[in-house]
Amino acid sequence: MKSTLELARESGFAKLSIEAVAARAGVGKHTIYRRWPSRGMLFLDAVLSADTQGLVHPDTGDVVADLRAVMTRACDLLGRPPWGPLYQDLIGEAQHDPKVAAAHHERFVKPQTADTLARLRAAKDQGQLAPDFDLDVAMELLSGPLYYRLLVTQEPLTHDYIDRVLRAVFNGMSPRST
Amino acid sequence: MKSTLELARESGFAKLSIEAVAARAGVGKHTIYRRWPSRGMLFLDAVLSADTQGLVHPDTGDVVADLRAVMTRACDLLGRPPWGPLYQDLIGEAQHDPKVAAAHHERFVKPQTADTLARLRAAKDQGQLAPDFDLDVAMELLSGPLYYRLLVTQEPLTHDYIDRVLRAVFNGMSPRST
Repeated sequence: MKSTLELARESGFAKLSIEAVAARAGVGKHTIYRRWPSRGMLFLDAVLSADTQGLVHPDTGDVVADLRAVMTRACDLLGRPPWGPLYQDLIGEAQHDPKVAAAHHERFVKPQTADTLARLRAAKDQGQLAPDFDLDVAMELLSGPLYYRLLVTQEPLTHDYIDRVLRAVFNGMSPRST
Repeated sequence: MKSTLELARESGFAKLSIEAVAARAGVGKHTIYRRWPSRGMLFLDAVLSADTQGLVHPDTGDVVADLRAVMTRACDLLGRPPWGPLYQDLIGEAQHDPKVAAAHHERFVKPQTADTLARLRAAKDQGQLAPDFDLDVAMELLSGPLYYRLLVTQEPLTHDYIDRVLRAVFNGMSPRST
């Protein structure tokens, strides 16, 4: 695992081979294949070995602050080196390897979504969210802009950007009748 | 170009080679390399040869309807076969080929963003948007959720989903004082 990460950081996923990982780890390549069916799956395990403890939402009673805490942590972790470029590569690989896509969804996206929704439901119960807000799109509204920067425009993921996304998502585009 | 698309549809980007495209087109591979420096750039040209005319915003005076028209067209075009999987692959390739990322940004993302912002500015001038809404995150808020589905969860991009995203972005998460 350590060998995979070292090699991936040095040369990126595109040049990562099971052979090179086996050589670096000092084992035969069958040892690697026994545990990971493809280099995509090996890479997924390596990337998910990052410390994702900070991605569990606290409940301080202030939903915006709690979302902000996790979003800034996610952006520090997955939006910049060393993990950022590797995570980008992993999502790239998921586009043509359905097994990598499914495993990424199951092991990372799904638990993150469940945790976010639990925090939002609590906020809704406390009247901090509009009672008719469609929670099923909440995760996509909050995470979509981050992934859009990471994968599409590749502009930097800054804390300021997260503040602006949160303000826009909470206030909405329509004029408010005040 | 036609050969590239045929081959890409048949086997996906991962298996697309300059050699195979040259063979299908009945030309030498140097002919292909003369025009496209890499298979990524060849693929970008092929994908961007899709008819993107419908992605220019009309101005009917109703900003939600106009955004909806372009977003549903984008989802019909890039969110399902034949272009969807190719577009997904292209974004995948952009994650490890900076030239493909830059060209995709310059030739597709940038003009789409400019067109969307022009439509939103007109709406703001007409009082259809909150006067303090941060237009610089508008594109990311509207497009992010679509890319999130396309690239991360790979759930289907439906017209119903677009309606829900638009409703959420316009209304916002905070309770409205009415």
